[in-house]
Amino acid sequence: MVLGVRLYSALYPSWGPVCLLLRSFASCSGNPASCCTMPQLGLLHGRAWAVLFGQLRRPPGAVCIGAVHSHSQVAEAALATQLKPHQEKSNFIIKTPKGTRDLSPQQMVVREKIIDMVVSCFKRHGAKGLDTPAFELKEMLTEKYGEDSGLIYDLKDQGGELLSLRYDLTVPFARYLAMNKVKKMKRYHVGNVWRRESPTIVQGRYREFCQCDFDIAGQFDPMIPDAECLKIMCEILSGLQLGDFLIKVNDRRILDGIFAVCGVPESKFHAICSSVDKLDKMSWKDVRHEMVAKKGLAAEMADRIGDYVQCHGGVSLVEQMFQDPRLSQNKQALEGLGDLKLLFEYLTLFGIAEKISFDLSLARGLDYYTGVIYEAVLLHTPAHAEEEPLNVGSVAAGGRYDGLVGMFDPKGHKVPCVGLSIGVERIFSIVEQRMKTFGENIRTTETQVFVATPQKNFLQERLKLIAELWDAGIKAELMYKNNPKLLTQLHYCENMGIPLVVIIGGHYTGKSCG
Amino acid sequence: MVLGVRLYSALYPSWGPVCLLLRSFASCSGNPASCCTMPQLGLLHGRAWAVLFGQLRRPPGAVCIGAVHSHSQVAEAALATQLKPHQEKSNFIIKTPKGTRDLSPQQMVVREKIIDMVVSCFKRHGAKGLDTPAFELKEMLTEKYGEDSGLIYDLKDQGGELLSLRYDLTVPFARYLAMNKVKKMKRYHVGNVWRRESPTIVQGRYREFCQCDFDIAGQFDPMIPDAECLKIMCEILSGLQLGDFLIKVNDRRILDGIFAVCGVPESKFHAICSSVDKLDKMSWKDVRHEMVAKKGLAAEMADRIGDYVQCHGGVSLVEQMFQDPRLSQNKQALEGLGDLKLLFEYLTLFGIAEKISFDLSLARGLDYYTGVIYEAVLLHTPAHAEEEPLNVGSVAAGGRYDGLVGMFDPKGHKVPCVGLSIGVERIFSIVEQRMKTFGENIRTTETQVFVATPQKNFLQERLKLIAELWDAGIKAELMYKNNPKLLTQLHYCENMGIPLVVIIGGHYTGKSCG
Repeated sequence: MVLGVRLYSALYPSWGPVCLLLRSFASCSGNPASCCTMPQLGLLHGRAWAVLFGQLRRPPGAVCIGAVHSHSQVAEAALATQLKPHQEKSNFIIKTPKGTRDLSPQQMVVREKIIDMVVSCFKRHGAKGLDTPAFELKEMLTEKYGEDSGLIYDLKDQGGELLSLRYDLTVPFARYLAMNKVKKMKRYHVGNVWRRESPTIVQGRYREFCQCDFDIAGQFDPMIPDAECLKIMCEILSGLQLGDFLIKVNDRRILDGIFAVCGVPESKFHAICSSVDKLDKMSWKDVRHEMVAKKGLAAEMADRIGDYVQCHGGVSLVEQMFQDPRLSQNKQALEGLGDLKLLFEYLTLFGIAEKISFDLSLARGLDYYTGVIYEAVLLHTPAHAEEEPLNVGSVAAGGRYDGLVGMFDPKGHKVPCVGLSIGVERIFSIVEQRMKTFGENIRTTETQVFVATPQKNFLQERLKLIAELWDAGIKAELMYKNNPKLLTQLHYCENMGIPLVVIIGGHYTGKSCG
Repeated sequence: MVLGVRLYSALYPSWGPVCLLLRSFASCSGNPASCCTMPQLGLLHGRAWAVLFGQLRRPPGAVCIGAVHSHSQVAEAALATQLKPHQEKSNFIIKTPKGTRDLSPQQMVVREKIIDMVVSCFKRHGAKGLDTPAFELKEMLTEKYGEDSGLIYDLKDQGGELLSLRYDLTVPFARYLAMNKVKKMKRYHVGNVWRRESPTIVQGRYREFCQCDFDIAGQFDPMIPDAECLKIMCEILSGLQLGDFLIKVNDRRILDGIFAVCGVPESKFHAICSSVDKLDKMSWKDVRHEMVAKKGLAAEMADRIGDYVQCHGGVSLVEQMFQDPRLSQNKQALEGLGDLKLLFEYLTLFGIAEKISFDLSLARGLDYYTGVIYEAVLLHTPAHAEEEPLNVGSVAAGGRYDGLVGMFDPKGHKVPCVGLSIGVERIFSIVEQRMKTFGENIRTTETQVFVATPQKNFLQERLKLIAELWDAGIKAELMYKNNPKLLTQLHYCENMGIPLVVIIGGHYTGKSCG
């Protein structure tokens, strides 16, 4: 038997019959008190143990004492066989819908930690929580997402209103502000969104995925809330220890200014902008080809654009663009550059300027942005050499959208907004992969105490005792059997990483029952 | 001016220029240290204050000191005007879909507290977390909900699979077990479900609502997991302090046994069962009429059923039914009665038997139950005389469903399950109403420190200082203005209940800047 169990003779005979709570040495390597707050802690035969007398009425005549020894292999083997959360879904009929998945207990633990960390950052910045329904009236989502509108999930017309599942958390937020005539609000929202994309699961993309959004709505002095959004992105990405990262920043007005001074007709701004957006995946040569061959732009204009959009740098690039003979003639571009200059000033005060790159190729897909836009990318140096680099694209992004709330208001009253969205699914993929690489074990329960017995007919005592533990707020489990084997019970503790076990039984017989 | 502000002369001139963090007396009535852990606490002019020197580099030459006085009316008035989370939605075009709603920051705070309490109970009982997609393949949900299937939301056929929004969390759990061939699992799941019911919002019923489920899957000795489910319901309902409650218990096999010995043909079991289910809302006379007139049952049979289903009591009623000359001849009923007897034994050991009523009228709507069923109801004695009684129906329910997993398994392998669902929306309505009645104020943010200034041109210093607070993990806010008025800043602290304010400024001038 892999599991060693030893019964001690009565420890403190003067105490008479006792019920001892003994610590499993397998589960916690640190201070025994760290696992579970216990009324008494001490050393017995050189080992840590804990007694629970204070909280338990002891069963009449009960006495038994034991200790569980560690065999991490047992725990691992059991973890591998007991739960198979991601089996092949192949062509078997029982499956989740395409692009969706269940989250196993292990995944839930990782996800909860990441989301807790993100939410605590949002709260540190004074945000309130908000929740909106999973679906909206279909008309609320139209004309908000440009080409991506085709990816919206519609509900079947079953009589009544036409509904669509939400595509992001930004449009519902803007709808909430307009509907309730809220002019000022700093809120966070953690929730699922749905997009009918062809799932490339390798990259951590699903049709159902979780977004963590933080937004500041209201009329304020320029760039102060915008700078806070970038500070939040830095705090979260640093806090999650995902390795080095960079936040690309640009401004829609600068892009439009560039297109204008390069001679692009205004009708082509959107099309050319979406070509520029591809510069993170394609070379300039290919993007230029697309502009000229597919979108009918004059080669000369494309070359002029190329001179701009291949630039990136720090605040000095902002200064350089201010001096640019053509761009400095464009009012919109000057506004954008002025704001970026101010933004960099604030980012310096926040101590994060070196994480930010003014990148003229950043365009962002969504229609509703009107000013500053940003996108955080991980730099491809995996934290540990053993890890395979995982292409996760951007892990956080956002920008200013001053017109969206006005689209919902019958009188068009605007509420300026700026915000960010953390791509937790992608972060989740990275953390999951890191844990796989290092074979990290995760406890999927928080159980502190297991109530065991080596003897038959002790169910009643076990039930009475565990109810007292529960009522005292202690996380406890027992085996749902009348007469479980002691080894099975201790085995379960090992597998689940339960740090403490109460072993109760009748008067001490002097014989081992392991 | 409603808000009183006073500037002290330099407190400790020997310290030279300082930056003081002063406590707002309005926000926290208790110990100043309870709001925020601070490096130093002391008394100044007889008032509590806290100094943050330890964590802050002080801006060169900055000195200012102040204290905020309380005017709860200000806070209330501002709360009423600033956020209007539930305005009349009337016939205005901007709205949430029928039967759904946004959750305002205030509501989110209450909801989070309730869910945290429920989840911590589930974890205390050793449950693992699990999440499943919002929608399932349509075929997964068919033949699971009987007459209620019409309430399922289907997604539009946009090419690809036919999908439906989940109707509960139980069927996805069974699908998960079958799909992954899991034979044993104790899991909890908190998530929204969707039902196209005619919403009666007064009763806390919505088309989108949150369920908190706990289930135990696996082959175990009888009634041990079932008893734990009832224990969990008691712990949660006691913990939430919703007033007195009662859990009705019955068994589907006893009901079937009653119908059989009363001569009901098996084809009518379901119809008669659903009539019995109405006994909590209709008199026996009306139910009897429905059985005889609408469902074609012989009056004699209905009367025999009436003799049974009007009975409720404790374990003595179980004994009485064992002695019943007709029922004791029915094998199914005897099995159910045997299990209930054992259940009561365990419930006594758990110390909750007096909360449980064996109620022969309890039938439960869903098709998939096969054994013990239960439903918790609040007894209509509002905790406080001022409160209007709120009819919320059952607040928690569940039962044993031994056949559901087998419906998903290609070979029909069964995994016995028992579980419960907490109706958090209904509990939420009760708590919300209680808070309204008592005019309780809820903080919607957790901000500990506000960074203010009475002087112009201090934005840079404020930004540097707040970044240090954030980096030290302190929840902090400032006004997004270059030169905000001091009163506006302090006003905000009052409105939001922010307990501490840092006031920074230039060298002390001897003049009030309030």
